[in-house]
Amino acid sequence: MERSLVPFGKPRAERADAARNRERLLGVAREMLTELGAEQVTMDGLAERAGLGKGTVFRRFGTRAGIFRALLDADERAFQEEVLSGPPPLGPGADPVARLIAYGRARITFLHRHFAVSRAALDRGQPVPVGDASLSQLHLRMLLGRAVPDVPDLDILTLQLSAALEGPLLLYLSMGGSPDPPPEADGALGDGWQVLVERLVRDGPGQSATRTGTGD
Amino acid sequence: MERSLVPFGKPRAERADAARNRERLLGVAREMLTELGAEQVTMDGLAERAGLGKGTVFRRFGTRAGIFRALLDADERAFQEEVLSGPPPLGPGADPVARLIAYGRARITFLHRHFAVSRAALDRGQPVPVGDASLSQLHLRMLLGRAVPDVPDLDILTLQLSAALEGPLLLYLSMGGSPDPPPEADGALGDGWQVLVERLVRDGPGQSATRTGTGD
Repeated sequence: MERSLVPFGKPRAERADAARNRERLLGVAREMLTELGAEQVTMDGLAERAGLGKGTVFRRFGTRAGIFRALLDADERAFQEEVLSGPPPLGPGADPVARLIAYGRARITFLHRHFAVSRAALDRGQPVPVGDASLSQLHLRMLLGRAVPDVPDLDILTLQLSAALEGPLLLYLSMGGSPDPPPEADGALGDGWQVLVERLVRDGPGQSATRTGTGD
Repeated sequence: MERSLVPFGKPRAERADAARNRERLLGVAREMLTELGAEQVTMDGLAERAGLGKGTVFRRFGTRAGIFRALLDADERAFQEEVLSGPPPLGPGADPVARLIAYGRARITFLHRHFAVSRAALDRGQPVPVGDASLSQLHLRMLLGRAVPDVPDLDILTLQLSAALEGPLLLYLSMGGSPDPPPEADGALGDGWQVLVERLVRDGPGQSATRTGTGD
C-alpha cells in the first residue's frame, strides 16, 4: 500500500540542473502567487523573474495551467507526507475513527486553501485537477476498512465517502465564474464530515464494537 | 416546497404550434436515439426526419448538445413526477428511510440510464448537466430532515449525501473518453447507498428512535 501512495517523485533520469530549474521555478511561482495572486502569474512573468529563458519554462510546464498543476502536485506530496508519517491523529498512531475525522478536516482545509491554484490549474475542457483523488481514496479505504470492518462493499463505501468529502468543494470549483467559497464553509464542512463519520461507524443498538487496531 | 420542485413547465407565451414542434422534435430525437444511438443524432438529421426546417431546430435547441439537454429535462420532469406523486416508496406514503433508499436507487438508475444522453448534452467547457442537482438536493433534504431530525447541520449533510449519491456517476461522466460504466455498477452503487443510509439513520446504542412521520 505504501508503495502506491508515493507515485510522485522525479523521474530518475532528470538531470541535476533540470531539477534545480524546476525547484527554482516552483519557488518563484509560489512567491508570485503570494505577492500578486494567481491571475498575475504568467509564463513570461515567471521566466523573467526566475532569470530563465521562456523556452525552459515552456518545456517544464507546457501551459500556464501547467505551472499551477506543478504547484498543486508539490503541495499534494507534502500533504500525503503528513498523512503517511506526520503526527497523529492525521498521521499514524491514532484510532481509525479519529484518523478518518482528522483526514477529512485536513483534506477540506487543503482543498479550500488551494482553491485559487486549482482554478488556475484548470485547462478548458479538462477535468478539475484538485488533489489526487486516487491517493485520497486509497487512504480513506484503508481507514474505513478498519473503522467499519463489517461493511459489505468497501470499494463502494470509499467511492461514496470520497465524493461526500471532496464533492461539495469540487462542485463549487467546477462552477467557473463563482467566487471562492467563504472561509466559514471550511468549518461547516469539517463538522459535517465528523458527524457523518461518527454516525457511520457507531455500533447499532445491541451491537458490540468490532473495530480493529489503530489506523496505522 | 412542492412549488419549487416543479420549476419547469413551458413558458405561458409559447404558442401552440411552437409547443407542437417542440414535442414533435423531442419525439423524433428520442426515436433516433433508440434506433441509431446518440452519436448519430444531428441538427440536420433531426430536422429532416421531423420534416421541419433547420431554422426551427436551431431556434429550439441552439446547439446539438441542446437537443440532448431538452431530452434530459423532459425525462427529469417525469422522474420528479414519480417522486412527487408516484407510488411509494419512491413516492409519498412510505417511511422516510424507505423513501431515502428508494430515491437513491432510482436516482442511480436514472443517472446511469441517461449516461449517453448526458455525455452528448455536454458543451465543451460547460458544467456536466446531468439531472437537476438542486431538485435532487431539495428532496434529499426533506427526507433527511425526517429520517435524522437530530443532525446538527441539515444543509451540509444534504450536500454531502447528494455528492455521495451522484458524485461517483458524475465523476465517471466528467472523464470524457471513458466508456459507460458497466451495468452491474448500478446495483453495487444502489446497495452501497442503502448501507450508507441505514447506518446513518440508525439509533446509537441506548438511544431511542426519534424519527418523525412519513416522508410525504
